[in-house]
Formats: sequence, C-alpha cells, structure tokens
Amino acid sequence: MWARELAVSAPGKVILHGEHAVVLGKVALAVALDLRTFLRLRPGAEGRLSVSLPGVGVLRSWDTPGLWALRGRICLNSPLLASIADFDESKSPSVEQLDALREFAGIAAGASAPESLATLAFLYMCLAISAKYGDVPSVDIVVWSELPTGAGLGSSAAYAVCLAAALLMVCGAISCPLQEGESTARWTEEELTLINSWAFRGERVIHGNPSGVDNAVGTWALWDSLPPVASRVPTLRILLTNTKVPRSTKVLVAGVKEKILKFPAIMNPVLDSIDAISQECQSVLEAMPANPSPEHYPVLEEFFDINQHHLNVLGVGHPSLDRLCQVTASHSLHSKLTGAGGGGCGITLLPPDTSPLAVEAAKQDLCACGFECWETKIGAPGVTLHSCSSLSAQVLHALTQS
Amino acid sequence: MWARELAVSAPGKVILHGEHAVVLGKVALAVALDLRTFLRLRPGAEGRLSVSLPGVGVLRSWDTPGLWALRGRICLNSPLLASIADFDESKSPSVEQLDALREFAGIAAGASAPESLATLAFLYMCLAISAKYGDVPSVDIVVWSELPTGAGLGSSAAYAVCLAAALLMVCGAISCPLQEGESTARWTEEELTLINSWAFRGERVIHGNPSGVDNAVGTWALWDSLPPVASRVPTLRILLTNTKVPRSTKVLVAGVKEKILKFPAIMNPVLDSIDAISQECQSVLEAMPANPSPEHYPVLEEFFDINQHHLNVLGVGHPSLDRLCQVTASHSLHSKLTGAGGGGCGITLLPPDTSPLAVEAAKQDLCACGFECWETKIGAPGVTLHSCSSLSAQVLHALTQS
Repeated sequence: MWARELAVSAPGKVILHGEHAVVLGKVALAVALDLRTFLRLRPGAEGRLSVSLPGVGVLRSWDTPGLWALRGRICLNSPLLASIADFDESKSPSVEQLDALREFAGIAAGASAPESLATLAFLYMCLAISAKYGDVPSVDIVVWSELPTGAGLGSSAAYAVCLAAALLMVCGAISCPLQEGESTARWTEEELTLINSWAFRGERVIHGNPSGVDNAVGTWALWDSLPPVASRVPTLRILLTNTKVPRSTKVLVAGVKEKILKFPAIMNPVLDSIDAISQECQSVLEAMPANPSPEHYPVLEEFFDINQHHLNVLGVGHPSLDRLCQVTASHSLHSKLTGAGGGGCGITLLPPDTSPLAVEAAKQDLCACGFECWETKIGAPGVTLHSCSSLSAQVLHALTQS
Repeated sequence: MWARELAVSAPGKVILHGEHAVVLGKVALAVALDLRTFLRLRPGAEGRLSVSLPGVGVLRSWDTPGLWALRGRICLNSPLLASIADFDESKSPSVEQLDALREFAGIAAGASAPESLATLAFLYMCLAISAKYGDVPSVDIVVWSELPTGAGLGSSAAYAVCLAAALLMVCGAISCPLQEGESTARWTEEELTLINSWAFRGERVIHGNPSGVDNAVGTWALWDSLPPVASRVPTLRILLTNTKVPRSTKVLVAGVKEKILKFPAIMNPVLDSIDAISQECQSVLEAMPANPSPEHYPVLEEFFDINQHHLNVLGVGHPSLDRLCQVTASHSLHSKLTGAGGGGCGITLLPPDTSPLAVEAAKQDLCACGFECWETKIGAPGVTLHSCSSLSAQVLHALTQS
C-alpha cells in the first residue's frame, strides 16, 4: 500500500559540446536543462494501477490482478522468457515481451507514436520492477513535461527516469527520502545508480538502442565521457530554440562518417579540436562559481562559436541553424546547434549582463523565423523528489487537469 | 640602345588555401590570377629614361647622365654604401639608399602613397640593375594594371616582376625570347629565377618585409611551400570580390597567434586540417585536366567551405565576408576569403556548368552589397613577353593613353 502524495521530476538534457564526435570515440559534455518532466504519485483505488499523460492524451487504468497474471504468463509461456530473471535490469526487453505487452495494451505492432511507446514503457517497467522487487501497490500516476518531444532534448529519458524513481520507491526498492515538511529531497548515489539502470531499460523500450546519455543526465544532471564525472555544472541562463526542422540522426551520423572516410587528414583534426573544446569547457565550468558573473562567459561563447563552425565542417549544419546563429549574433549573443544538427535545436548563452530587452528582442526575432524558443537554464538538478505543495501552480495545474 | 617595342605582363595572385597557416609553418597554395599588370617598353628619347603609371598618375622622366651620377654618389658618399656591390640582389635596399633616392625624386620621407612607392621602386631597380649589368638604355616605360591596389592581390609584386623583366632584358642580363611574328614568349627557368630575385628586391622597396610569395606567383604562376613546385594549375573560372573593408594584416596575424597561445589544444588541430586541405587541393589540381569539366569541382567547393569555417575559427572572418559567402551560396556557389581576411577579398568558384544568368545575378547581388566584383580566372601564366600587336585593344588603349 502507498499512502503519500508526492511528485518526482527529472530534467531534459542538452549537449554543450561533443555531439557527433562522441560517436567517434571523443569526449562529449551533456548537461541538465531546466525544462523538466514531472510525475505525480498518489494512492489509487484498491487493485487499480492508472497512468495519465495529459500531454500526449494517454489515460489508462488496469486491474492489478490482471497485470500480475500477464507478468506470470510472459514468464511461463515462452521458452525464451522462462523465468522472472528475464526482467533483470542487465537484460534488454525482448521482442516477445514487448509483443505480449502490446497485445495486452491493444497497441498495434510497429506503432511509434509517443503515446504508444510511453504506455508500453510504463507497462514494461511496472511488470519488470514488480517481478524483481514485489508488486507495485495501487497508485495513480500522472506525468507531464515542459519538454517538447522528438527535439533531441531527452524527453523520453526524463519520463523513464521519473517512472523508474517512482516505481522503485513505491515497491520499496529505494527509500522515500522526503521528510515531512521538506520541499525536495534526492536519493543516495547507490539509489540513483539503480534509478538510472531502470530508466535505461525504459529508454530501450522507447528508442531501441539509446546511448544512455539522456537517462544519465536525467538522473545525475551531467554526463561526460571523461572520468571522473564532474559533480556539478554552474547555473547558466540560455535560450533554447527549436528550429522545428525535422532531421534523421541516423542519416546525419552516417554523413559525418562518410566525410571522415573521404578526407581523413582534413576531418580527423576537426574531431580532435572538438574533443579539446569539450575538455576545456568542462575545466572552465568546474572552475566557475555556482552563479558566474559576466567575465566568466566570453570563453564559453568563443567555444560555442568555434564548435558551431566545426559542426558545419562535419556537414551537420543547416540553413535554419545558420539563421538562428545570425539572429542571435545580431543581438551580440552566441549560439550553437545542440544534438544531431541538420535542423533541430540550438542553444544561445545569456550572460548575466544581457539586457532583458535584448533577450526579448532575440526571442521575438527567433519566433519570427518560425522557431519555438524557451528562456531557460542549464545546470539544473537531476532526478528530484518533491512535496506536491512545493510545485509551481503551473506544474500542479498540469498534473491535476487530467 | 633598345630598338624594339614590346610588352611584358605579370599576373596577380590569390591564395587558394593556407593563408595564416603558412605564417605558422604550414603549407599554402597561391596561384596566379588572370588580372594582370602590363608594361609597355619602347625606345625613348636619347639620354632620357621615362616611366608613366597612368593608373596612379605618375609621369616622370630623367636625364640618364643625372641618374648614373646619382648612382655613383650613392655608392661613394656613404661608408655604408661603399661599393656597387651594395646593389647586389642578395642585399636589401638600405635606408640610406632609399633616402638618397627619395631626395632625388622629391618624395617626402615616409610617403606611402602607391605613386611614391612605385616611383621609388622604379628608381631603385633602374640604378641597382644598371650598376650590376650595365646602363639601362633610353626607354619609355608605361605600366598599367587590371589589379586593384592594396587588396592583397599582389599588384605591387606584378609591377615589380614586370619592371625586373623589362629592365633585365634591356640591359642584356636576360634574353629577349620573342621571335619576330610571335605573339608571346616566356623566359628560361634560369632567367625566371633572376627576374624573381630582382622583383623581390623591388617588393622590399614597396613593402619593407614581403614574404616573397607574390613575386614568385607573378613570375612562375604558382607558389606552394611543398617541394616540388607543381608545374601547372588548371584554368578555373572564379568571381573575385573585393569587400573593400580595410584591414591590417599585422593585426590579424597577431590575433591568430594569440588565439593559438590561448587554446593550443583547440587551435593547433585546425591548422593541421588547413594544412591537409592545401595538400589535398594541390593533389586534386594536379590530377585535373587543363580545362576541368563540372564533375571535378565539388571537392574543390567542399575545400572552400571547410577552409572558410576554419578561417572563421582562426578569428579572421568578417561580417562582410559572411555576407559574400551567403550571397554566393544563394546562387549555389561556394566562396572563401583569400589573403589576410578581416574584410579584403573573397573568391568564388564558377564551375563550367554555372549558368551565365546565375553568375550575372551573383555579381549584381555582390555589387548591391557595395562590393567590387571581377569575373576572371586562376591558373593564368606567369611573367610573359608580348608583341604589342597581340595585346587586347583595352590594354593597348590603357598603355597609350599617357
């Protein structure tokens, strides 16, 4: 039984430096974005488990006896799924498991809409976590996100991190660290590691073969491929702009590889330079105070400019991204693409001495290009447990409208 | 005595790849531009030596006895200038020599206008060459150029190359290779080496400490820092655009050095990549036929795009150059800055399948930006001797209007 009403949140991610280079064995620097996914958890009707995703129009509810019977059937009926150990977190969800879950939930084979994949991931995580740690009690779950989906900002990972934390907590696999009267709390390092590993399995249901970067950022707020993982990123104000130009990450990654094979002597040094930018940027961030003053920004801006040129050299630029950089440059702001490129999102640093009028003017100009624009921050905390009363009115409203 | 009427021409230069990197020990690839400087040489009044530069408003004439007396005075009066050996081509023009020449020609100390420096270089080369190879006979010299001055296109070197060739030829230090009835002729490799070394001394009068690249291109049509010097460059059509934004090469070079010292791990790989572009480009040019067809161009265009990004990373871009690249890109043409950057000139490749309408539209758009634009070629011949009758009417007119 679960008696408390609580909320869990996890941040989205942006890649500061190292996109594409990371695929080729170089360093990358991914940080948490202060656009978050929120999960509200409260006691549900006895014997019912329900999930609502108002952003994608999902409102589903199941009898828990039916769910646990499904779990037993999946484990018994297939020779490939002979035991509960198949739900171990070291293993991928199997094709057979996912087919059985789809059939149970009435999701067509091959359905790739966010609502189908989100429902599938929810069911998979419920069954797998309950098989390992004991039945999930009767709870109502609502998930809502500030993040746009499909924009390379880690929205599916933030969802999976929130689900993993909530389900592991209600099963007792991890503690409930929020004391009465506290607004927020975080889990121990060991618990975070468990949350991350289950979130990764959820990501696999949604993405097939994710890199694991997004769920790590959702959990710990920072990911880099350099040991040791830096403990924190200062809070940096940014504009996040979605050009809304669709692109295929797979095609872009293949294009970069082809360019490197064609001109190795020209392209490999560019990857080395990007690698050095990621490393230097990490050093700069570590040396910065938690709330940096204006003089800390010019080097970060220079790294943005250089890497944006390098990403163009790799062939992952796009006229919409050139436009984004030009528009912000006309307001003396520095931008780069983030993620796969070829469209998608760009980030613009907002040093503390940027006038609010300049930010407003830049946002207007970006919107006039048909882009969507958020004034937000990087350096946000990883997965967090909240008392519902500490959430903003906007978030609370979104989580109760269902 | 000199009895023939002839013309000498030498090309300007553009740097295809390797500007800035060459200062830091990397390869550069400079090629001849089909905008040329022309020198008309004809018998003059007995005992007179005259030079006319209609483009910069110079029309001077000297008694040769006065000139040779000056030569003697320069050689005798100063302990630093004790012998005729001071005019040896291995030595620089000295401050004292140049002061004496300025006084003789009535040029104020420190005068740096093109007409002053051109007159000074003419006097210096006349006296130095005559001291070494015998008196320059009475000739009339007219020099006119298609090249703009001060745009980094090697106009002063083309002037010095024409002067060196003409003066060495009339003194008998090199042959007159043009047979009766021929339109053009070139000198032997040995003679070209002599022309180049004297042109370099003329450049020193004008520029103080030139690199020697411009006079080498004016002489041989190609310069690269890789042994062996490639024998030819295919003829490639280009647009040459002068943004007319003034810049200081010295300041730009110092800025690049500073950036490399500040971020060596980020910037040194960029220089390596530029180096590889120069080398790959040279291989591509050598493998191309003399008149390449459209399929030979995409790689050259890709090199332009990559290097333009790299030059921006080095900090030598300029909004005017961004504009130039954008405007030509809007006509599917690829451009890069050439030379020091920070304004100055850009080159745009014109593959043979480019429609004349697209070229015309690009030129109009560039002119609308306030730029000056020439439709020309690279891969032009080096210093050349012409019969006057083989010159175009436009060039002949320019050389006879004085």
